Amino acid sequence: MDVITLATKPTILILGGGYGGMVTATKIAKEFGHNDANVTLVSKHNYHYQTTWLHEPAAGTMHADRTRMPIANVINESKINFIQDEVQEIHREDNKVTLKEKGQVDYDYLVTALGSVPETFGVGGVFEHAFSKWTVNGAREIKDHIEYLFAKYNNEPEPRDDYLTFIVAGAGFTGMEFIGELSERIPRLCQEYDVPKNKVKMYVIEAAPTALPGFDPELVEYAMNLLENRGVEFKINQPISEVTAEGVTLKDGEEIKSQTVVWATGVRGNPVIEQSGFENMRGRVKVEKDLRAPGEDNIFIIGDCSLMINEETERPFPPTAQIAMQQAETVATNLKALIKGESLQEFKPDIKGTVASLGGKEAIGIVGNKKLYGTSANFMKKMIDNRYLWILGGAGLVLKRGKNPF
Amino acid sequence: MDVITLATKPTILILGGGYGGMVTATKIAKEFGHNDANVTLVSKHNYHYQTTWLHEPAAGTMHADRTRMPIANVINESKINFIQDEVQEIHREDNKVTLKEKGQVDYDYLVTALGSVPETFGVGGVFEHAFSKWTVNGAREIKDHIEYLFAKYNNEPEPRDDYLTFIVAGAGFTGMEFIGELSERIPRLCQEYDVPKNKVKMYVIEAAPTALPGFDPELVEYAMNLLENRGVEFKINQPISEVTAEGVTLKDGEEIKSQTVVWATGVRGNPVIEQSGFENMRGRVKVEKDLRAPGEDNIFIIGDCSLMINEETERPFPPTAQIAMQQAETVATNLKALIKGESLQEFKPDIKGTVASLGGKEAIGIVGNKKLYGTSANFMKKMIDNRYLWILGGAGLVLKRGKNPF
Repeated sequence: MDVITLATKPTILILGGGYGGMVTATKIAKEFGHNDANVTLVSKHNYHYQTTWLHEPAAGTMHADRTRMPIANVINESKINFIQDEVQEIHREDNKVTLKEKGQVDYDYLVTALGSVPETFGVGGVFEHAFSKWTVNGAREIKDHIEYLFAKYNNEPEPRDDYLTFIVAGAGFTGMEFIGELSERIPRLCQEYDVPKNKVKMYVIEAAPTALPGFDPELVEYAMNLLENRGVEFKINQPISEVTAEGVTLKDGEEIKSQTVVWATGVRGNPVIEQSGFENMRGRVKVEKDLRAPGEDNIFIIGDCSLMINEETERPFPPTAQIAMQQAETVATNLKALIKGESLQEFKPDIKGTVASLGGKEAIGIVGNKKLYGTSANFMKKMIDNRYLWILGGAGLVLKRGKNPF
Repeated sequence: MDVITLATKPTILILGGGYGGMVTATKIAKEFGHNDANVTLVSKHNYHYQTTWLHEPAAGTMHADRTRMPIANVINESKINFIQDEVQEIHREDNKVTLKEKGQVDYDYLVTALGSVPETFGVGGVFEHAFSKWTVNGAREIKDHIEYLFAKYNNEPEPRDDYLTFIVAGAGFTGMEFIGELSERIPRLCQEYDVPKNKVKMYVIEAAPTALPGFDPELVEYAMNLLENRGVEFKINQPISEVTAEGVTLKDGEEIKSQTVVWATGVRGNPVIEQSGFENMRGRVKVEKDLRAPGEDNIFIIGDCSLMINEETERPFPPTAQIAMQQAETVATNLKALIKGESLQEFKPDIKGTVASLGGKEAIGIVGNKKLYGTSANFMKKMIDNRYLWILGGAGLVLKRGKNPF
C-alpha cells in the first residue's frame, strides 16, 4: 500500500531559486504533509541571493556574500529536493523540463519563477561593453572592475579620465540605488587610491522624461538633489543610442567616454519563456488571475516572468520582489487546492510600499500614503529586507543575516 | 653675523624617498646641527613605501597602506625640507636639478637615491602587457586586476582559462616572494568567487638555469617544493621571447595564455642617471669607495642607481634595501666630513643575511652561515622588516607599523 501511495504522489517542480521560487518552496514545506507531493526546486546556483540588495556589493559597500545563502540552509530538505542546474526549455505537452546538465525531468505541476534578464531596448553594444548582470557574479565583477580602474589610474603615463567616469544607464530603482551606493563610496575610494575627487564623474542617463518614472515627484526631486550634491550629473530625457568600448553615444550625438557603463534600464522575462513557446510580451506571460499560464491547467508563472495589469493605472505591475513573494504564497495555496480538486484563489497584489535606498543613511519611500525621507525611509528599507528574511527562514535568519537599522 | 652664517650654510639635496633617501635624511636629522646645512628631500610621492613588502599587497595578502607612511610623519621637518616632485635631470656642471613641476633647484651636495625601474632585457611587450611596477600604485593594480579576473570568470559564456592563469616572469627574490603570497591566497580567492581551484594555473618562468640564482641550492629546492605543492609550475632555463595581449611566448616556441603576467626579472637604475650623462651600466653608476660618482666631488649615488663590485665573488652586489640603507649611513657621515673638510670613509657592505618570504608562515633564508626554513626564517624576515622601521622611526614606528612575528 505504501509503495502505491508514494508512487501516486504528484510531482511539483519549481523552476528558479529567486524570491518567487524560494517562497513557494518555503510555503509548501510549511503547509504540505510529507505524503501530499514530491517537490523539487531547480536553481542554477546552489545559493539563493537577494537581487534587491545587489546594488550594495556592486558598488562595494557590502560584501557580496551577505546577499546570498546556501539553498540547502534555507529549504527543508526532508520535504523539498534540490537540483542545481540550468533550465533550458519547458515542454508543455509532455510535462517535462530540459535541464542543461541533467537532461529531462517530469512534473505534474510546474511553478515557473525563472526571473528576468536585462532589457536593452534595441540599444547596441550593451552585452559587449556594459555591465548588466544583477547577479552575485555580476555584482562582484562591477565592484572589482571599479576598484581596478582606481588602481590603474595612477599607473598611466597620461591621466585617463574615462577610468574615473561612471555611467549608469537608467534612472529606475536599480540605477538610482546603485548610484546612491557608488556616490557614497567614491570619497573613500579616492582616499584609498590617492585619486583627486574632482576627477571622478558620475552620470545617470535616462530616456524617460523623469528619474524614477511613476514615483512621487517630490521624492524624486529629493533623491536627485541629494545625488547631485554627491557629484552625480543627471541626463534625463536623453536616450542612449549605443554603448561602445569607449563609452556611450546619446541620441543627440553627444559621446561620453567611460570605461564603466552599468546597464539598469529594466528587465525582460527569462528567455526560457520565449524558447518554450508561451505567448509573451518581452518574455513575460500575461497570467490568469489564479496565476496559471493561459490555457495551461498545471503551469503557474510568477515573478518577473509573469505580467499582470494594475486595473487602477491600466499599466502592468512592475516586476518586484514584493509581488513575486505574494504570488508565491498564492501559488502554494493554489497547488494544494489543485491537488485536492478544490477551487483556486485569485491573486490580489497588496502593495505595502516602495522604498529606494540612496547610500549611507539616505533613502526615499512611500508607505501607504506617507512619504518617507532620509533615516525614516532608510529604517523602513531595512525592515522590508529583514521581513523577507523572516518569511524565508524565521527569526533565526533575521538574526543571522538581517540588517541593523540603527 | 647670524645672517651671514645662515646664508653660507651649504645646501644638501637628497633625491628619492626610498630606503636610501629616507635613511640619509633620518641620519642627517639626527647627527647634523641646525646650522650645519640646509637639507631638502625630493620625492615623487608624499609617502615613503617599503618596496620589499610590496609582494604582499600585490597578491592581496596585506593592505597596500601598511607598506607606506607619509614622509612628513617620518622626517624631522624642523631639519629636513620636503618637496613632492619628480626629478627629471641632474645638471652636474651647474649644481642644479630640474624637477617636473617646480623647475630648478640648486645644491652644494647631492645624494642621488632614485631607485630603479623594471629591466626587460629586450623582451617585447613587457610595458604594454605585463605588470611590472613594484610601487604602491603598481601593487594595487595587480591585486585589483587579479580579483577582477576572478569576478569576471563566472560571467563568461565560455570558461576562459587565461583568466585563471598567472605567470610570474623571473624566479628572483621578487618573483618568488610574490608567487609565495599569491599561491597562499589562491584557495581563499577560489572560495570567495566560487571558482574551482583546479582551474587555477600558476607559472614561474626563469631564463637562468636555476630559481633564485646565487642562493643556497638546498634552500632553493625547499622553496620550489613548497611552491609546487601549492600548485606552482616552474619553467626554469626557459627564456621568454615576448609578452603579448594573450600571454607569453617562450624562446622554444611554447605559448602560455594568461591575462596576468607579472614581470619580476630584475631592475635597472632610474633613467634620470642616463638622462643626466653619468657613465653607467644599465642605469647604475660604478661609484667610488666613498660612494661618490667618478669625477664628481659633491655627488653621491646610492641604492639601486649605484653599482659596486663584490671583491669576493667579482660580481656586482645585488640591488637590495639592505645595501641602500648601509650606504645611506655612510653618505650621511661623509657629507659631514666633506662640509668640515675632513677625509671621507670608505663604504664596506656588511651583508647580515638574506631572507625570502614564501607566503603564510613560510620563508627561507641565510643568516651568517646558518640556513633557515619555515617559521624560523619567517620570524627572521619579520625582524628584518621591523629593524628597518626602527632605523627610520625608532620603537614608536615599530609599535605602530611593525609586523608581529608570532
